[in-house]
Amino acid sequence: MKYIVALIAFFCSISANAQQKDEEVIQKIYSETLTHSKTYDWLRYLSKHIGARLSGSPEAAAAVEFTRQLMDTLALDRVYLQEVMVPHWVRGEKEYAAIINAKSIGTKQVNVCALGNAVGTGPAGLTAGIVEIKNFEELAKLGKKAISGKIVFFNRALSSTHFDTFEAYSGAVNQRSSGASEAAKYGAVGVVVRSMTTSLDDVPHTGALRYAADLPKLPAVAISTNDADLLSSLIKGQTDLQFHFRTHCQILPDVRSYNVVGEIKGSQHPEEIIVVGGHLDSWDLGEGAHDDGAGCVQAIEVLRVMKSLGIKPKRTIRAVMFMNEENGLRGGTKYAELAAKEGNKHIVAIESDRGGFTPREFSADTTPEKLAKMAAWIPLLKPYGISDIGAGEGGADIGPLKPLGTALMEFVPDPQRYFDVHHTAEDTFEKVNKRELELGAGAMTALVYLLAEYGL
Amino acid sequence: MKYIVALIAFFCSISANAQQKDEEVIQKIYSETLTHSKTYDWLRYLSKHIGARLSGSPEAAAAVEFTRQLMDTLALDRVYLQEVMVPHWVRGEKEYAAIINAKSIGTKQVNVCALGNAVGTGPAGLTAGIVEIKNFEELAKLGKKAISGKIVFFNRALSSTHFDTFEAYSGAVNQRSSGASEAAKYGAVGVVVRSMTTSLDDVPHTGALRYAADLPKLPAVAISTNDADLLSSLIKGQTDLQFHFRTHCQILPDVRSYNVVGEIKGSQHPEEIIVVGGHLDSWDLGEGAHDDGAGCVQAIEVLRVMKSLGIKPKRTIRAVMFMNEENGLRGGTKYAELAAKEGNKHIVAIESDRGGFTPREFSADTTPEKLAKMAAWIPLLKPYGISDIGAGEGGADIGPLKPLGTALMEFVPDPQRYFDVHHTAEDTFEKVNKRELELGAGAMTALVYLLAEYGL
Repeated sequence: MKYIVALIAFFCSISANAQQKDEEVIQKIYSETLTHSKTYDWLRYLSKHIGARLSGSPEAAAAVEFTRQLMDTLALDRVYLQEVMVPHWVRGEKEYAAIINAKSIGTKQVNVCALGNAVGTGPAGLTAGIVEIKNFEELAKLGKKAISGKIVFFNRALSSTHFDTFEAYSGAVNQRSSGASEAAKYGAVGVVVRSMTTSLDDVPHTGALRYAADLPKLPAVAISTNDADLLSSLIKGQTDLQFHFRTHCQILPDVRSYNVVGEIKGSQHPEEIIVVGGHLDSWDLGEGAHDDGAGCVQAIEVLRVMKSLGIKPKRTIRAVMFMNEENGLRGGTKYAELAAKEGNKHIVAIESDRGGFTPREFSADTTPEKLAKMAAWIPLLKPYGISDIGAGEGGADIGPLKPLGTALMEFVPDPQRYFDVHHTAEDTFEKVNKRELELGAGAMTALVYLLAEYGL
Repeated sequence: MKYIVALIAFFCSISANAQQKDEEVIQKIYSETLTHSKTYDWLRYLSKHIGARLSGSPEAAAAVEFTRQLMDTLALDRVYLQEVMVPHWVRGEKEYAAIINAKSIGTKQVNVCALGNAVGTGPAGLTAGIVEIKNFEELAKLGKKAISGKIVFFNRALSSTHFDTFEAYSGAVNQRSSGASEAAKYGAVGVVVRSMTTSLDDVPHTGALRYAADLPKLPAVAISTNDADLLSSLIKGQTDLQFHFRTHCQILPDVRSYNVVGEIKGSQHPEEIIVVGGHLDSWDLGEGAHDDGAGCVQAIEVLRVMKSLGIKPKRTIRAVMFMNEENGLRGGTKYAELAAKEGNKHIVAIESDRGGFTPREFSADTTPEKLAKMAAWIPLLKPYGISDIGAGEGGADIGPLKPLGTALMEFVPDPQRYFDVHHTAEDTFEKVNKRELELGAGAMTALVYLLAEYGL
């Protein structure tokens, strides 16, 4: 009995010592990033100097080179590119759209932008009657007779009553991603989608659509929420209302591009890989500051802090700048394809792609056992604003790693302001707060440190 | 035994029913405020139309009248004013300050603002040698010989390594509040204080100082953090550096002003009072949007939501707009004085004075028993981003209620951006996010509902 008690006391003291050491390391991590981080300067460069960087654009190539050179200064074990062919959609000349009602308002210009991957209308534009729809069931019910030859206006607003705006987004985004092909089933000629935001303003939000292979490809635009409300009010009771829009977008041949990877080799288990990443491409409006310049510089900061503090992680850590999250996911797919071949074990991948806001949680798509192991770390992270590690989603880019048994995780910052700027001209550097960005980097570094120390 | 089991089952079912009812009510509260709130419009009026409203100013009088009229539209049981005489400090003409070094840079203008309650320099201004000091111990060590006839430059920066920026503020603010009198002890002629922010920028932050009664009153200004760093770098090794500043502030006779109170009478325990409030006055720079227009409109929203949902609170709820938090606390003191006389029991007071940011917690200065009772409500609030009700501070205005045994509570939103704008020209309406403001109102309404339902 005495031995058992002594043994328990011994293991408790080991565990208490380990906890104290972890507390100290995590405190150092936050101090380092909150006082010496260059993430804000890196993001300024990516946002203000390079700017919007849609896949296939010269700016996307610049972003690849910038982050490669940046990681080359950090004395990592390896910095390399993963070649990947990406789609090359271009918006072309600025869009124009108007509500036409000869009887009352005449022609009223409204704020729109083409949806990503959409075909253009050609220079003459498209003019047709317009039908307002809330969901696909209503569309099906109206059927060909009401829809054929018309422009379909998808106007289901994001619910503002969720604390988590991503839930609101999930409840509305199928209008944008699938609305064009759904409308095509019933002979529509074009699509207008209410912008994906809870805000009421004049800013249209772009984002990807996917055409079904076997249906006509309809031109499609997003309309600002204020103009969606105006359009909706004008439609009521006016059967002769027409809508006109001109878009000049087109899909050009695929372009050679790259994921950018920086790596610190694990000191004890180099074959166990921890990925931390964001996506380097952004939509062509704005500067891709929150989406997802923030995630990229945070991932690089994880490596910089490790090196700067002289932490030798037991497992291998890779910061990955994925290419083409926004309109193809080719970078994430390519990464997983190469990961499957390399023979190492990707134990966990963490994505930061919800903006550079104050940390709140991490979510994880993994087994209950692994989740429980990580949940035990919450007390270490709580002093820095992380209140939970719960079951949830991983990010888009790391999704293709799932078949490898990789635990998929997402950094979950405060979600209130993200959809004010998401996929718009408003997603600029000025919308990112320095401390919030750095705290996100701190949270990711702290979690990666624990994962590297204890595995999963 | 059977009876006991039946009894336990009965009480459990009551408790489960109560919890379900509370969940439903709280869900309705959030839905109401996130879809029908006018808090953002109210704040726009207070910030953009009325603007800065320092105690004693015409704008402070306008704010009293605006909030009184606003609450009059809400069909409350009572809306009334509490008369209180407030100090009337005025800044006067814009300040000027410069570093003077004939040998190298010549005259370099820097960004300053007078500290609140400070005396002015007079039109000729003040020119003297300058000594940089980090803390009062260093000041004492240098003593009269080094300090006499000099301007003291307090340059202890806020630590950026705390998650909670209010801790950083607490660790530095004595330089602003007491620095002038501390320096006066050693014969200094003026004081320059580094602005109370972790940001590096060109914006000076005002805020109150308190003069000791028995010491000379020195003119005092805050200098922007960028200029503080510049000044510090120039001081090093240059004994002949001089500093000049001119301030035109003065203290005018006290002015009659008011706290504004709106009340819904409790249906079962009208004698138990729950106070929810913010302060109506603001500094004269900026628009007092985060500090503390946000807290005022949130407190009013608590009453509006109750009325709008038809909730009849069991205990009396008062929304109080306190006057003169910034430079005198006369409103809070007056409220407590009247509360002591009225014979009702103030069970709890909640202040919102940390900006209109996303909710994170409530803190409470009360007994462990009452804290434990409230902590049991956390699961009801967690879906809306409130992760804790912990021991901590109440707000300044409600502090004087402490001798009445009132539990003092503070709404604790995310603290990262507050000190970017606190007490500056940057504290404008545009810095407040609509959803963040509304979620704060929802959090306060939900907590007040539970307190009104169950008491403390």
